Amino acid sequence: MKPHVSGITLGVKDVNRAKQFYNKGLGWPIQQDYQGQWVSFSLNNGSSTLGLRPWDVVAGDAGLAPDGSGFRGITFSYDVRSKDRVDAVLAEAKRAGGTIAKPAQDAAWGGYFGYFTDPDGYLWKVGWAPATTEQPSAAE
Amino acid sequence: MKPHVSGITLGVKDVNRAKQFYNKGLGWPIQQDYQGQWVSFSLNNGSSTLGLRPWDVVAGDAGLAPDGSGFRGITFSYDVRSKDRVDAVLAEAKRAGGTIAKPAQDAAWGGYFGYFTDPDGYLWKVGWAPATTEQPSAAE
Repeated sequence: MKPHVSGITLGVKDVNRAKQFYNKGLGWPIQQDYQGQWVSFSLNNGSSTLGLRPWDVVAGDAGLAPDGSGFRGITFSYDVRSKDRVDAVLAEAKRAGGTIAKPAQDAAWGGYFGYFTDPDGYLWKVGWAPATTEQPSAAE
Repeated sequence: MKPHVSGITLGVKDVNRAKQFYNKGLGWPIQQDYQGQWVSFSLNNGSSTLGLRPWDVVAGDAGLAPDGSGFRGITFSYDVRSKDRVDAVLAEAKRAGGTIAKPAQDAAWGGYFGYFTDPDGYLWKVGWAPATTEQPSAAE
């Protein structure tokens, strides 16, 4: 198995609401939109995708009960090349309907970061670090 | 904000156990290993990373309580170009210490897929579909 993620699927309460956030709010072009049951976005120049699907359907696809609560253990990072961009991206996410879970702040290790959540509570960490400019994974 | 994920961070119970699974078990080369508190792997030819960090630390970084249980709402996909490879990848994940959450099976829509979980319960869907060979996101 290669170190590769073809896609990330998020179980959401309301596919249309989540679609509006990522598409209209953050400006991500829609790749597929299947009758409110599946909406996807191309990620990282086509090497991966982000998919939105009803929460219960995601659980059912894996044969699991849909019950779940609290912290989910996972976060996504969105690394940028300046502190100003951290502020700008968090502001954009808020305008799009996201929630600022942690305002941007200096970190003890020298970086600068904050968190927002999408309408379903998935966490995005927007961060800058002195080394970010050299990281191929930096978003911008 | 661009449609980009710089990194996926998984909160895990035991960083070393999770490291063994992805590194020794699945054969993914380690990118960074910081004293058992952070282990990362380069994903998708360097455009993203997978990071392993103690569950409580991930929650704390976002300023959230670490309590959580049940279904987490999220799955990763690993798309391959043949049904045989679905079987082979699931077998590899099982040998590596993963758990087969759903054995591979034909889907009503014409595809073939199964699920495994890593030692912390994160779900990976290993799948083939007639269209997979044309998807740039296919892992192999």
